[in-house]
Amino acid sequence: MIIVKIGGGAAINIEGVIRDLAALEEQAILVVGANALRDEIAEKLDAPKKTLTSVKGYTSVFSDEQAIDVMMMAYAGLRNKRVVELCQQCGMNAVGLSGLDGRVVQGVRNKGIRVKEGEKVRIVRDFSGKPKSANGELLRMLLDNGYTPVLSVPIIDENGFAINSENDDIVNVLQRELHAEKIVQLIEAPGFLDDKDDPTSLVAEISQPELAAREEQVEGRMKRKMLALKKLFEDGAATVLISDGRVEHPLQDALAGKGTRIA
Amino acid sequence: MIIVKIGGGAAINIEGVIRDLAALEEQAILVVGANALRDEIAEKLDAPKKTLTSVKGYTSVFSDEQAIDVMMMAYAGLRNKRVVELCQQCGMNAVGLSGLDGRVVQGVRNKGIRVKEGEKVRIVRDFSGKPKSANGELLRMLLDNGYTPVLSVPIIDENGFAINSENDDIVNVLQRELHAEKIVQLIEAPGFLDDKDDPTSLVAEISQPELAAREEQVEGRMKRKMLALKKLFEDGAATVLISDGRVEHPLQDALAGKGTRIA
Repeated sequence: MIIVKIGGGAAINIEGVIRDLAALEEQAILVVGANALRDEIAEKLDAPKKTLTSVKGYTSVFSDEQAIDVMMMAYAGLRNKRVVELCQQCGMNAVGLSGLDGRVVQGVRNKGIRVKEGEKVRIVRDFSGKPKSANGELLRMLLDNGYTPVLSVPIIDENGFAINSENDDIVNVLQRELHAEKIVQLIEAPGFLDDKDDPTSLVAEISQPELAAREEQVEGRMKRKMLALKKLFEDGAATVLISDGRVEHPLQDALAGKGTRIA
Repeated sequence: MIIVKIGGGAAINIEGVIRDLAALEEQAILVVGANALRDEIAEKLDAPKKTLTSVKGYTSVFSDEQAIDVMMMAYAGLRNKRVVELCQQCGMNAVGLSGLDGRVVQGVRNKGIRVKEGEKVRIVRDFSGKPKSANGELLRMLLDNGYTPVLSVPIIDENGFAINSENDDIVNVLQRELHAEKIVQLIEAPGFLDDKDDPTSLVAEISQPELAAREEQVEGRMKRKMLALKKLFEDGAATVLISDGRVEHPLQDALAGKGTRIA
């Protein structure tokens, strides 16, 4: 089995990924992003992304009810259903699910962020959190009956509420449950770059022990990504391929070793 | 088993329906509309509904690619996922599906509409069509494992494209496959009205043979509804309840016989 995470960048060749996957004829789970699409829809709906800065100075996205509405439209709605449609046209009987559906990705809501308001500090809580487990029974039932699950945020929290979450973390809980032989992450870069501003600095191979050192090297979102990768191996991953999602054959190239291989 | 069709009007008490359904503890399939929500989102996105008038003078909605995008956002995205969330909060393990997912509602795309353009007549084809069958295997697998399917348009056509369709027709193909004992349709009226402009003219009971006569009596959308109802009995329905979706306990009232009973 293979888990394919498709990044939400505007330049990702989703059609290419689906075509490659159909040709592979392997059991697969897709985890589909939609950042760029969400931003586009949010702008049209005049529902811009809100951010908060904590007392410690960390800035993070604030997912209020409206943000979850937009997420449902962009991720679970438009992106997920167009991907399912593409899969169907390529002969894969895809079933698109948010984490809410069948509680397929269950998480825990964040407790809140401490923010300053004038001189006061108060705790602000949004609809975001961390995935903790996947409904392996439902996923295996679908896979064993020839269906290809296509997953998108939101996920479901401990009280049945829709919450935002990172797809990297979702892949981790899927892997813990399903033990895929290969995990492919398709992004808007040739793979992991030694220098993030130099696309020719592709690192072809990273050993597992090297991950910690690489984690030191990077910043921001990429740091979180490296942390998630480290956890992915703790969760039993054998091979992770990070590869270019913008090319004609994103998945084929990834499997041929054109990106970064972590094993 | 019960099939519950929830109308897409703005005044429908969806939360009340879900609460009633949870208390019922019966196998159920929900078919969820979102007309008002779709119109609201379409307006914000500046993607207004398009209509066409055929050479014969019939006016119909024209579902182009953009209209299907909005449908995916409003029906399969926001409405479907908020309903699934409500179900989860009430203890029902709902799985939201569009007709594309697992090809759960398969149809045939309309051939096109003949329209006049100046002196010329040309055929214009949109993404709409009629459902022909349901994937009973997938639905039964979900139901037998304790999941509650929540269905929304679009459905899938013979070439794997997303198409718009009438929920009344979708209920028909579901019934043919699943033989529910009861079908409940929750609308923005007390039930079937003898005079559509007089809410006190509720018809408490319609016999099956009476349906044809009633079909003569009504116009427009309601005529199509009566036709679908006639077909529903041909497809093996035993009891159809048309009842008020705006009250505190829409489903409870419907089952208590407060609307129109057709048997």
